[in-house]
Order: sequence, then structure tokens, then C-alpha cells
Amino acid sequence: MRGFSYFIKHFHGSPSSSKLLILLSISGGGLVAYADSPVDSRSNYSKSTNVEPKKKRILVLGTGWAGTSFLKDLDISSYDVQVVSPRNYFAFTPLLPSVTCGTVEARSIVEPVRNIIKKRNGEIKYWEAECLKIDPASKKVFCKANLDEALVGSNYFSLNYDYLVIALGARVNTFNTPGVLEFCHFIKEVEDAQKIRITVIDRFEKAVLPDLTEEERRINLHFVIVGGGPTGCEFAAELHDFIYEDLVKLYPSVKDLIKITLIQSGDHILNTFDERISTFAEQKFRRDGIEVLTGCRVLSVTESSINIKHKSTKELSSVSHGMVVWSTGVGTRPVVMDFMEKVGQTDRRALATDEWLRVKGCEDVYALGDCATIDQRKIMEDISSIFKAADVDNSGTLTIEEFRQVMEDMIIRYPQLDLYCKSKHLLELTDIFKDSKGNVRAEVDLKGFRRALAHVDSQTKSLPATAQVAAQQGAYLSRCFNRWDRCKSNPEGPLLFDKSGRHEFRPFLYKHLGQFAPLGGEQAAAELPGDWVSMGRSTQWLWYSVYLSKQVSWRTRVLVVSDWTRRYVFGRDSSRV
Amino acid sequence: MRGFSYFIKHFHGSPSSSKLLILLSISGGGLVAYADSPVDSRSNYSKSTNVEPKKKRILVLGTGWAGTSFLKDLDISSYDVQVVSPRNYFAFTPLLPSVTCGTVEARSIVEPVRNIIKKRNGEIKYWEAECLKIDPASKKVFCKANLDEALVGSNYFSLNYDYLVIALGARVNTFNTPGVLEFCHFIKEVEDAQKIRITVIDRFEKAVLPDLTEEERRINLHFVIVGGGPTGCEFAAELHDFIYEDLVKLYPSVKDLIKITLIQSGDHILNTFDERISTFAEQKFRRDGIEVLTGCRVLSVTESSINIKHKSTKELSSVSHGMVVWSTGVGTRPVVMDFMEKVGQTDRRALATDEWLRVKGCEDVYALGDCATIDQRKIMEDISSIFKAADVDNSGTLTIEEFRQVMEDMIIRYPQLDLYCKSKHLLELTDIFKDSKGNVRAEVDLKGFRRALAHVDSQTKSLPATAQVAAQQGAYLSRCFNRWDRCKSNPEGPLLFDKSGRHEFRPFLYKHLGQFAPLGGEQAAAELPGDWVSMGRSTQWLWYSVYLSKQVSWRTRVLVVSDWTRRYVFGRDSSRV
Repeated sequence: MRGFSYFIKHFHGSPSSSKLLILLSISGGGLVAYADSPVDSRSNYSKSTNVEPKKKRILVLGTGWAGTSFLKDLDISSYDVQVVSPRNYFAFTPLLPSVTCGTVEARSIVEPVRNIIKKRNGEIKYWEAECLKIDPASKKVFCKANLDEALVGSNYFSLNYDYLVIALGARVNTFNTPGVLEFCHFIKEVEDAQKIRITVIDRFEKAVLPDLTEEERRINLHFVIVGGGPTGCEFAAELHDFIYEDLVKLYPSVKDLIKITLIQSGDHILNTFDERISTFAEQKFRRDGIEVLTGCRVLSVTESSINIKHKSTKELSSVSHGMVVWSTGVGTRPVVMDFMEKVGQTDRRALATDEWLRVKGCEDVYALGDCATIDQRKIMEDISSIFKAADVDNSGTLTIEEFRQVMEDMIIRYPQLDLYCKSKHLLELTDIFKDSKGNVRAEVDLKGFRRALAHVDSQTKSLPATAQVAAQQGAYLSRCFNRWDRCKSNPEGPLLFDKSGRHEFRPFLYKHLGQFAPLGGEQAAAELPGDWVSMGRSTQWLWYSVYLSKQVSWRTRVLVVSDWTRRYVFGRDSSRV
Repeated sequence: MRGFSYFIKHFHGSPSSSKLLILLSISGGGLVAYADSPVDSRSNYSKSTNVEPKKKRILVLGTGWAGTSFLKDLDISSYDVQVVSPRNYFAFTPLLPSVTCGTVEARSIVEPVRNIIKKRNGEIKYWEAECLKIDPASKKVFCKANLDEALVGSNYFSLNYDYLVIALGARVNTFNTPGVLEFCHFIKEVEDAQKIRITVIDRFEKAVLPDLTEEERRINLHFVIVGGGPTGCEFAAELHDFIYEDLVKLYPSVKDLIKITLIQSGDHILNTFDERISTFAEQKFRRDGIEVLTGCRVLSVTESSINIKHKSTKELSSVSHGMVVWSTGVGTRPVVMDFMEKVGQTDRRALATDEWLRVKGCEDVYALGDCATIDQRKIMEDISSIFKAADVDNSGTLTIEEFRQVMEDMIIRYPQLDLYCKSKHLLELTDIFKDSKGNVRAEVDLKGFRRALAHVDSQTKSLPATAQVAAQQGAYLSRCFNRWDRCKSNPEGPLLFDKSGRHEFRPFLYKHLGQFAPLGGEQAAAELPGDWVSMGRSTQWLWYSVYLSKQVSWRTRVLVVSDWTRRYVFGRDSSRV
């Protein structure tokens, strides 16, 4: 009997080898070594202007995780590919907190987009520019290069597309808190991290100036972090290590005046992690002298103070600070907001796509990464069609055998069904038909079917705004584009319940490979697939090897290792450059 | 017979081992390894506030070559040392041209001042601030930290000193050419080099944008360098290598539109070097396609063009450019200018000091490095005193034997005498007394003495504004401070000709250890002591080893080597970070 768990396994085991990642990572990995193929220095780039006009034009906006991962595997022989992004490099953002304190240098985590392009034989055209406006009606994108206006030649240009891939990422979310944009630092771009590094050193230089009172020195050395998510916590840990491993030796006169405060609105920091990790992190931070304020909302930030409301006691307080780093959630970029209005998506945080990453409300536009969310189709919306499609003998009732025929397709089309069964600890999907006494019913009618699946949609989960999701989406979408012709004639997706035939592609399915929370002092916590929780020094080594394996090129891999080694031997540099 | 050459040798051989530098350098050198002594992490810094009040206070302004080299060897047990500099690091400036193109990273050539201080057990106090005003009357210096004004605590403070060491360096010299400050780049500070690197990449990104005409692309890719000295030439060579070894592979569509022009006002580039080197460099640049315009004066610079006058033909021309790097000579910083006025030194380029580096016109102030020039005492000003001091029998005439008694002191006090003898190819200093027919005269009177030495002062040379001079001056001055007490009772300087006794110290004497001119493509030229000229690949390796040996710490030494290696393996990075 082919049971539910078989399907699950079958589906999860295919089509990628991504489960091998953690193992491979220890050997230094070659999964993302696409940038390492031999360099072809011939001028292939200029040839691309003579490209056959029949090729469909794909325009990719953004070179972050989603965009780069899409470009990485795209079969460029079938498409004319153009890329626009204001950053001419791909940044390995999970190491940004390390850059803020000089554990890793900014340059070690970036790889030029053109390098990636060059190594794919130059068939992709890239322009360093910002996308100002997307016009889906005329299939046009308007761009502006962020270059010196005084230079000859216009910075404005427009591009036509046949398919548009929006991978613009998100901007920081201030929740409209007054003063955040003006007075806070962020950990979003490489420049942000560099600015934080200089600011920390500035605060120490300020604090040791003559003629300051002790209170003034204290305020300058009060570092506040808002947001107890993985980034905020990692930054707090990095900052603590930077200060207590390196800076106190150089500024010993003020070493007792330093304070780090972490403000979290929830009841615990790292609340997307397992509770054991939250607790471990809070205990570690407390031991390290990092003040953790949970259940606090930031009302406003000024240049020298931050105003807080303690949720439980409703108490208001104001704290003087030398620097605030804001690290809470993601917001929508203006160009995406503008586009959302055009396609009739308003009052949303991100672009809604279907499960195939197609933007809802317009043709030939795809969105992935932090700027998009997948609007998972509810099983209840299609319940009648599913019932009808499954009831092959048109008896008005569904037997278990009939249900079994559509089960695999249902799980692919509605992944919440899988999650629901797991949450109910059902061994087989057919157990869903058991009555309240636990007896298996031979058949159900539409009403019974509807009742059995009534709570499935409550398990619909939106994906987090992480590099992992974006990278998987990019890889998924390039696979779809690469197999377009083949899948048109041999669709491989689930059944179309409302009519005959199948979807061309399987919908995107996110495979969570786990997440890390480095906590400083060579300790880290990790949540790995299968609810495996790991904490301590060995986890930090796992973190090193996973992050190393995921580097985009051998160049950055070597640089990151040499940075880590340098930090061990010489400590972090405190020069203000 | 103790001859002239003996004195020369004797004098040149003492007191330092600096001649060993080039040899030592090949072994990786430990000459400047003072920053490598074991780290003492105890809080010695805070102890220094309880320092005995009897110690004289030395205030050092600047942490460049002169200031750092002074601090490096100063005996801190005898003085209370304070340091003020707007840069909290020492930068190895000879590698700045390498930083402009990413051959070496900025962070690899800097060492935090506090690191240097820490390793000297923290007895030096350092503040990151700019010196605004020096008041020699009240022995006070007024400073301002360049930190965010919004921070609590004043950025302004003043410091008292007993001895002041001015090592503020120079600023760029625009020769009042209009537009230079607004539209040119410089190679003076680390930030300048970083800005140049980003600008070069920007110009390439601009040149490949759609919708530009070929002429517009060409203008954006026209890089102009003004100044054919060692820095200008090295930058031209670096830029050429960056472009043709790395960037053309990433921007192949515009590779035929790139142009580099080097503008030199003199008739040859590298005109402070041996003629063979000038010629070699010009030929190499021509082969590389770098246009060298000699005998051209820049009249003005605008944001898109540079106006030139060809000196010989008086012809005027205007050239469109994408970027201009200005690298010509050194100018005076405002704070130094203001101080010069206070001590009665006007219409000068730099602070005049005597041969002991004491600023003329005020007490207890020393100046060294690019902000100062030594006003060499003329032999003719003292000719009567010398004659009188030498004429021990008061006969009114000087015998060769009598002259021989003061010869050593004269050479020490007036180094131009040494240069004069060399220029005249005299074997012995006493040959100066030969009459026009070459016969040795037994004795001379004052008139004859004056006539014999009449042209000596024409050999007085001012020192170039180089790192080598600054470093030697810093080391010299710290030796003087360290031996102050001893030399007061046992003066070791030359005779005071106008009265009895001796100078406390020998005057500063510059020992030229040679200079390098890297010309790109793994070729360099070098002028080494003894008129030894070396050119080609082996010289580049000599350059590598010398520059490596001169690094200020093992940290920077390791970083520079790893940068060079990285460049060999992966090329230079073109990410705009």
C-alpha cells in the first residue's frame, strides 16, 4: 500500500540534492562553485549584441540571493538575459553581522555580478542601475544609474522584456516609528555594516576624549539593538566580542562604562527558534552582561535617546544611547509598492504570487525573494472540484481508493495538507476520514469530505524572508524556465482539479534546511531539520563549515577563511578606514 | 693621515644600522617590528593618569611617518607623552597607489595608533582629533575631534605641553589651479585611494550603460593623471594593470575605448630619478599605450575637461575626461600656516627648523616630516668664527694641520662641504686649499679661506618630502630626547665655532637609501645608494621585499602578502564596496 508517508518521502527526496548540503559543506562544498569554471577571456560579451532576435528576453531586477540564484542555473542558450541592480556585486548577507565588527571584511563576502556573468560566457547583460518604475502594460522597465550626474551621457534608460523576474528584496521596516530612519543604523546592505563598524570605533574615540564627564562617556558607550531576531542577536554577540576581545585592550580607561542593550518586543529573543535555543541565548547574553529587555516596544528614537514602552506594566521609559541598530523585519521598496498598485495589489507588505512565483494580476512577471510572498491556494476554495475530480464513478461519494488516486496531487498542490497531517500525528493521509471514534469510514460524501478537510488550511504558512527561501525560489524558477518547452508537452505538475490535464510545473516547495544563531564567544545555536537542536562550540564549527560551503566563489571562500584566521591571530582591526 | 674620505666613511657608518635595511628587508626584516612585542592586556593606560607630575610633557601632533617613527623609539619612562591625530591609525603611504586599484586592501596598510601604544605598555595617551591652533606663547594646543556633533560631550579640548613635536604632514598642492580641489582626486590619504577605486569602477559602469554614444563612452573612460613624479607614475601603472589585467575581462564591450593620459610639466617623467629610469619609464608607458604629455601645464580643470598649455609651442588645448587624479607636490596645512605666522615665518612653504629640527623663532617646538624644512646654516655666515676657532695660535693664518683639527666638526655642522668635495671630485678635504695651479698651499689667511670655501654653500640641498626623510627625522628626534640628560653633560655634537664648547647633539643628517618606481606589469625601476640603477622584473621583487620589510607590524605584513597572493590567484576585485 502506497501510504502518505511514501509520498512525502518521495516528494521530499526529489528533485534536488539540497539535503546533502550540510554534509557537503564540511568538505568545503562545491554546490555553488559555478563561478569557478575556467575563465574565458574572449570578448563574448560584445557578441551578445548580435544575438538571434527570436530569443525571449528575460529581465532580472536585483542581484541578491533570489536574482543571483536564478541567474546561476538559467540555461542562457534559450533566453536573452538582462540584469539590472544598483549593486554590481552579490553579497553573502548572512555574514553581514560579522562585517559590522570586522570579523570578516566587507570585500570578502561580495562577488562582482560581472564575474559571475563572465564565467557563464558573457551571455548575460548587466547594468548597475536602480529600477525606478515597472510598466507591465507596455512590458517596459525604467531605470536610473546611481552615478555622478556631472558625467557625460544619460543615467536614465528603459528596457523591454518578455519575462520579468522581480527580485528586488526588501527595505528595512521601521513600523513608522519616529526617528528610526534618521538616527538608527541598519544591517541590510554592505555599506550599512561598514558604517556600523566606523560608528562603534567613533564612539570609543569620543568616550576617551579629555574633558568629558563619566556620564557622557557612559552614554557614548551605550549600544542599543532593537530587534531580537537572528540578525539582531548575532550583531549583539559580534559587538560584545569585538568590544571585550579587542577594544577594551585599546581603550582600557573606559572598559567599565560600556553597555549593550537588546530590546525585543516579544517575550523572548530568537522566538522563531526552538524554546531551548531562546533560553540558551538569553542565559548566554545575561552571563555576557548584555541587557535583554523583552516585551518592550520602541515608541520613538532621537539622536541621543530611545523611548520605550514596557508592554506588561505600560510603563514608559527613556534611555540615552550612543548608537542604535534597528533590526526588525522587512518593508516594501517604493518601486515594488508602485508596481503593486498597478497590478491591483494594495494594502499588502509584499507582492503576492501564486505557487509558481507568478505575480497575481499580470502576465509574464515573476517575483521572488523578500519582495514577494506566495499566496497559497486554500484547499477549501477548490473542495468541490477536488471532490468531483476524485469521484471518478460519479457516485456522489468518495471511497478511500478514489481518494488515494488524487492524494499525491493534492499534497503537491496544497502543501498545508502535509503539515496538517503532521500536526495531527496521522500516519496516513487516509486517516483523515476516520470518524470521531477512530473508525475508518468506507466512503464520504462532499459534506463529509469538506468536514474532514475543514481545518487543513489553518496550517498554511507564509515563508520567512530569509536567504534560504530566496535562493531556493531562484533555483526553482530557473529550473522552470529551463524546462519550459519540455513541460509544455509533458506537464509534470499536479492535476488541474477544475478541468482536465495537469499543471506544467510542480509548484514551488520550500525545504527548510535549518537555521543558525551565532551567540558569540565561539558558541552558536542551530535548529536543523528533524527538530534537531544543537548548541555550543561544536555548533559554531558547524556554522563555520556551512557558511563556508555556501560561499558563492572560491575567491570569497578563501577570503573568508583568511579573515577568520586573521581574527584568531591578530584580533579585529580598529582603524577607522 | 686621516683623510677626508675617512671622515665621510666614519660619519656615514655611524650611528645607525640603516644601511643594512635593503639586505635585512629580503629576510622579511624586523627593523620596524616594535609593534610585535607581547601584548600586555593589563590596564596600563588608566594607570598613566597617576603619572608623576615631574615628567616633562611631550605633545606629538600627527601619526604619519614622522610622528609614528618618533613615538616608536621614544623612551617613555622619561616623558609624559600625548598624541593628537585625526587618523587613529598609521598608514603605510608608499602602498597607497596599490590601494587605489585594489592590489592591496586599505586595511592591510594601516595599523591602529592604539595598537602601537598598547604594545609600548600604554604610557602614551592618544586622542583622535584635529589640531586647530598652536599657541607657542602659552604652550597650548587647541584640538577638535571630528566626531558627530550630536553626541553628548564636547569635541573641543586643549592640551598643554613642555615640548611640542609638529608632524602634521602636508596637504595637496594645487598651485592655485582653478577646479583642482573641486574636480580632482588625490593620493594623499587612505580615503582618497578608496574613492579613486570606486570612481574607476563607476566610470566603467557608466560607460557600458545603454543609450550612450561611443564618444560619451570614450570620455567616461579617459583617465588623466597630472604629475609625473613617483606617485603619479605608480598610479598610472597600477591603473593600467587594473584595467588591462582585470576590468577588460568584465567590460569587454568597451575595451577599445579606454585611454590613460599622464601630464607632466617637466620635460621628462620621474625627473628626480636617474635619466636611464626616466627613459625606461617613458618607453614602458608608451608600449603600454599610456599617453605621456611632457612639458604641459594644466591651466584649469572642470568637471568634464582639463585645459592644458603646451610650454614649448604655447599652444592651448582642452581634453575631455572621466576622471582626473592630481599628484603634484605638497602644500601647507592651514594650522601650520597659522603657526608660521605666529613665529614670524611668512611666505614659506613649510616650517623652517634648524638642523636639530627645532622650529626657528620659538622655544621647545620641533617640526619634522612634510610640514617642515631644515634651513641649513650657510658656511659663509660663520666663516670668520670658524677661522678664528681653527686658528689656535692666533697667527692670522691657518695651516693645513690647524684646518684638519676642525675639519670633522665642519663636515658635521655643514654637510654641504661634503657634497661640495664630492662634486669637485676632491680626494681629501685639504685639497680645497690647492691654488689654481694645483699646488698645496702651506697656509691661508681669512681672505684665502673665504675664497676656498666660497662655493660650498651652493651645494646646500633641501630634503624631498618623502616617507624616508620623515621616518629618519622621527627616529633622530627620539634619539635626541632619549639622550638629552646624557648629552647635556657630555655633548656629542660638533664644535660651537662662535664660542667654546660643543653642540649637545649632532645635527640631523639624511641618509638616502634609494627610491623605487613601480612601473606596472611586474616591472619596477630603482635608484639605490652608490648610483646603482636597477630596472625590470627583479627590481619588482626587490620592491616587494623592501616594502614588506618596512611594514609597521606583522599583522600588516601578513595582510599585504596575502593581498598580493590573492591578486595573483583571483585578480583585483571590482565590486563597488
